[in-house]
Amino acid sequence: MDTPLDARRVRNPGQTREKILDAAQVLILDHGFSATTVDAVVGRAGITKGAFFHHFPSKSDLGRALVERHAATDREHFLAQLARAEKLAADPLQQVLLLIGFYEEEFDAMEEPYPGCLFASYIYEHKLFDDGTLEILKDAALFWRAQMKAKLEQVMAAYPPNRAVELDSLSDLFYSITEGAFVMTKTLGDKTMLSRQTKHLRTYLELLFAK
Amino acid sequence: MDTPLDARRVRNPGQTREKILDAAQVLILDHGFSATTVDAVVGRAGITKGAFFHHFPSKSDLGRALVERHAATDREHFLAQLARAEKLAADPLQQVLLLIGFYEEEFDAMEEPYPGCLFASYIYEHKLFDDGTLEILKDAALFWRAQMKAKLEQVMAAYPPNRAVELDSLSDLFYSITEGAFVMTKTLGDKTMLSRQTKHLRTYLELLFAK
Repeated sequence: MDTPLDARRVRNPGQTREKILDAAQVLILDHGFSATTVDAVVGRAGITKGAFFHHFPSKSDLGRALVERHAATDREHFLAQLARAEKLAADPLQQVLLLIGFYEEEFDAMEEPYPGCLFASYIYEHKLFDDGTLEILKDAALFWRAQMKAKLEQVMAAYPPNRAVELDSLSDLFYSITEGAFVMTKTLGDKTMLSRQTKHLRTYLELLFAK
Repeated sequence: MDTPLDARRVRNPGQTREKILDAAQVLILDHGFSATTVDAVVGRAGITKGAFFHHFPSKSDLGRALVERHAATDREHFLAQLARAEKLAADPLQQVLLLIGFYEEEFDAMEEPYPGCLFASYIYEHKLFDDGTLEILKDAALFWRAQMKAKLEQVMAAYPPNRAVELDSLSDLFYSITEGAFVMTKTLGDKTMLSRQTKHLRTYLELLFAK
């Protein structure tokens, strides 16, 4: 089938794949994975069904690829913001506070309420996904924990905490507060929710490690 | 159809309705609303399809009734724990800390990882629900905010906070931390996640209002 659309796809196959993933992500965050049909994705992406199946043999392949992309972006973004924080401050506590602050700045800059997190969307339909896909969600949560924990260990060595706290769950708090704030953002349609919730994590860490 | 099952239903219609709602809730938290079929609910509840449609003319009626029940239970439970806290302590800060602590005790007592929150499940498929159903989710979040805010206003009057904090978002933090911890519990299959995340909220409030 040498249609103009197919020709365009052949000229820029990466772009078509990204368009499909972008369209699917928007639809899934509003309707869930189950109710998002291939037809709807194709319609939103403005491509042919042939192009869709060229890139993704099945909807389940799409689901897997989408969360793989989301996990990779999430991870790169976290590491980039951490690297910025480490460049701008020498003190580990200041680095953690900057890292969280950079996320707040981004949340504040959004013009629309944040559409939610693909990880949470998938987890509330988790029986629809294979173990490999669920492993990606798990790895993402454990990546955040490991990164935050490494930094908080440096903080604790420099600043004895003012209350006895358990390190693993403290490391998880950034992830859980943002996930919770995504749910509230979607529930209330309030775009300020994310940065306002995250700010409390910063205040908590300031108080916990205040000299 | 005067089958034995129907006869049982007529003898105890409320019980059948609850059985349907219980079955649907378990299925929805694992598969989402869209992928949960009436057949699956009927199978899990061990009732006839006739009995199902006697109680719920459509799946959408079931979805509405389920979240109405969840919101009512959630609200009653919150008010009951708040009343306990208010009976056991005179000081508003102690009351808030007890309230959160009671939730922690319950999370700790669970034998299985918490299956998640129906509100979050619905919000990640929100385009499948009518405005009335979404209004219930919104009311639930605003109920928690209003309740926590009323109590935190009393706390602030007695204990000037050690950092400038914004009251509305502080009031939302209990809701967002639990929602986030539900996502993490499901992701990691770790039943300790909920009480460990919630404990940080208690520690935060202790530090924020420490004399």
